[in-house]
Amino acid sequence: MLSNNHFYSFLKKSFTTRSSKIGVIGLGYVGLPLLIRFVEEGYKTIGFDIDEEKIAKLNIGNSYIKHIPGKKIKGILKKSFIGTSDWMQISEVDVIIMCLPTPLKNDNVPNLQYILETLLMIKPYLKKGQLLVLESTTYPGTTEEELVPFAEQCGFNIGENFFIGYSPEREDPGNQNFTTRNIPKVVSGHTKVCLDVVKTLYDTIVDTIIPVTSTKIAEMTKILENVHRAVNIGLVNELKIIADKMNIDIYEVIDAASTKPFGFTPYYPGPGLGGHCIPIDPFYLSWKAKQFGVEARFIELAGFVNTAMPKWVIGKLDEALDKKSKSLKTARILVLGLAYKKNIDDTRESPSLELINILLERGAEVDYYDPYINEIPKTRKYNFFLKSVTLTPKKIASYDGIILATDHDEFEYDIIGKNGKLIVDTRGRFRRDHNVIRA
Amino acid sequence: MLSNNHFYSFLKKSFTTRSSKIGVIGLGYVGLPLLIRFVEEGYKTIGFDIDEEKIAKLNIGNSYIKHIPGKKIKGILKKSFIGTSDWMQISEVDVIIMCLPTPLKNDNVPNLQYILETLLMIKPYLKKGQLLVLESTTYPGTTEEELVPFAEQCGFNIGENFFIGYSPEREDPGNQNFTTRNIPKVVSGHTKVCLDVVKTLYDTIVDTIIPVTSTKIAEMTKILENVHRAVNIGLVNELKIIADKMNIDIYEVIDAASTKPFGFTPYYPGPGLGGHCIPIDPFYLSWKAKQFGVEARFIELAGFVNTAMPKWVIGKLDEALDKKSKSLKTARILVLGLAYKKNIDDTRESPSLELINILLERGAEVDYYDPYINEIPKTRKYNFFLKSVTLTPKKIASYDGIILATDHDEFEYDIIGKNGKLIVDTRGRFRRDHNVIRA
Repeated sequence: MLSNNHFYSFLKKSFTTRSSKIGVIGLGYVGLPLLIRFVEEGYKTIGFDIDEEKIAKLNIGNSYIKHIPGKKIKGILKKSFIGTSDWMQISEVDVIIMCLPTPLKNDNVPNLQYILETLLMIKPYLKKGQLLVLESTTYPGTTEEELVPFAEQCGFNIGENFFIGYSPEREDPGNQNFTTRNIPKVVSGHTKVCLDVVKTLYDTIVDTIIPVTSTKIAEMTKILENVHRAVNIGLVNELKIIADKMNIDIYEVIDAASTKPFGFTPYYPGPGLGGHCIPIDPFYLSWKAKQFGVEARFIELAGFVNTAMPKWVIGKLDEALDKKSKSLKTARILVLGLAYKKNIDDTRESPSLELINILLERGAEVDYYDPYINEIPKTRKYNFFLKSVTLTPKKIASYDGIILATDHDEFEYDIIGKNGKLIVDTRGRFRRDHNVIRA
Repeated sequence: MLSNNHFYSFLKKSFTTRSSKIGVIGLGYVGLPLLIRFVEEGYKTIGFDIDEEKIAKLNIGNSYIKHIPGKKIKGILKKSFIGTSDWMQISEVDVIIMCLPTPLKNDNVPNLQYILETLLMIKPYLKKGQLLVLESTTYPGTTEEELVPFAEQCGFNIGENFFIGYSPEREDPGNQNFTTRNIPKVVSGHTKVCLDVVKTLYDTIVDTIIPVTSTKIAEMTKILENVHRAVNIGLVNELKIIADKMNIDIYEVIDAASTKPFGFTPYYPGPGLGGHCIPIDPFYLSWKAKQFGVEARFIELAGFVNTAMPKWVIGKLDEALDKKSKSLKTARILVLGLAYKKNIDDTRESPSLELINILLERGAEVDYYDPYINEIPKTRKYNFFLKSVTLTPKKIASYDGIILATDHDEFEYDIIGKNGKLIVDTRGRFRRDHNVIRA
């Protein structure tokens, strides 16, 4: 025991005996699986979300996330789970874990409004002895600069009668090998006592915890993971453009380089970055770095290159149509795949949306096909009113151009390849043929 | 058999029966181990090098490369090996493999002079039926644009009575797990027949060959491998500077991120790039890309960031000395490690040299210690006349500052850490302590 204060020992014991109640705020791709893990381990739980529709679905045992089956929701309902949008119930829980979106404002400025507004909403219901953990990706310093002063203003003594931690989520939707339980989890606390409480909690639900010495280190860890991906994808996207000019198949190059048994990890080009993490998180660091007078130039460059990809892909399509004396303005184009990566139903920040947007702006007639997404959801940026078409060989042959944007395994590549007039392949999935161009 | 021409079938058969004679030009870190592999497999060999001193050493069974013991040289001398600087002997060999340096001129322009001059030297002795393979790293197109026209001017028909291939070296000096034999080898040929000949040859000396469809693909493959490293090291060097400003230990962050079981590969910061490959090869691509009207911005940025590291490290030393009211001009500084990476004796492009250079320019008194390098070899850029000192606890304590530049495993970190007044650690090797700063 690091301390003999009552709150600390009570909380730790309540984890060991599973007598504590866990509140998870934000029941999306991160919060819902996390909450399910707690129920599986015998904890009482309350799930909070401002989206009443989600809460209603959960409370009758339905799921709104493809890879989490309704069966699983029904299972946890039987054990312990309350879904609510009523903040008052915060006073019922011993642990509050925030799994809230951290998007960007214009000009790639971090937008903490979901976290900050939530703190204000739960403020009246906070009480001594609670543990507050943030799981959202954010810039180094957020916990120290936002959560700690907030809790101190509430009158708490952090590490004494209130505990604060940060533990970045590492969810990878669609990954068959890794789940919330077996992905090692980085944990941190504002004080040593806080860290000890956080460690004890997460140790009960994940196989391996990785304690680090400060919340800043934990915040930076998650950012490094995603900066690494954004920059490596940016690099290979730039090399794709260079290889294209040199008439070199970048996929053959990547496959050959991947045979090097040390010092190389393959990354693959695509039509741009998607998802809630990789296109967004790196800018949290570059914004913060500027406050310290340093520039995160790799992040800026990766953002620039990756954002330019949809336009480059359309340029390749344009070129190919032009060779057939066809203009994009009068063309019928099919976009294959709407999700931001294969085999999932998540369209957040998907480059397919930007592809469709450019095509429509250019006057083309656009259809899309995605077995996972029946209609395009309205986003802050786009509102297309499009529904997924049904594909037949005849239908495939009717398009002037087909862009493979997301390489779902479910697509019948042979049939599409055989019937498509012109295929712009942004994933290297089709065999090289007279009707296929890589982009 | 792809062809029934005499030269083709004769050459292929001579590999299978080991009756062919292999000539390797350039007996450095790449050529010497390669030649040894051929001898081990029963080939007759001739090793060519313009450095008479090297040839003399080899012919009496001595080595000039630390990780290749003299015993090995003596062993191959007994079997089959002639070392020579006499180009006339090119007429004796069936295969010519060029393992020559491809450095940069000023302004990061590729310098193919070693290859081009060698071609001129061997020209009079080339004959029908020979296979010419380039192993040096170079920009995509080199084989097609330089070797092929050269051989055609010699009057050969490529793929008919003369064969040309490209197979990038993947040597990793000091790597205990991988040797010339078990590192998969990318092979390519100018024509299908050339490829077949090259495949047959290398298949006899390496466990796994990776045939690709063109010499351009093979050239780009090697460049991609090294661009990947240069950019990832550049990225983590930039993040090191950002983390330093934020008072975050980047090594703790990298260690924590490394626990992610997918999507992350750790790279470590350092005092700058070294060796013959990573600081140089990427610029071969960026130069070529410019000819196609595209910019390789990640390569340029990585070059910029990595080249700036020695200066940044000295800046951190300067700052730390300043806090002790000591100026660099009057300081005695020890540079620990001269090799460009740990546990080897190779100083090519080593950032330690640039560190010493800046220190001397600033007026500091400089010593260095490296168990593998007794005195600093003269390079095109530097000529220091320094010899490695002997370290005792008293000697260690006598320096105002110690820069750990290369983290050889042989260093006694405990003793150095205990006795050093101020240690600037560019490798994250020392424990955090009052006298240690990370840089």
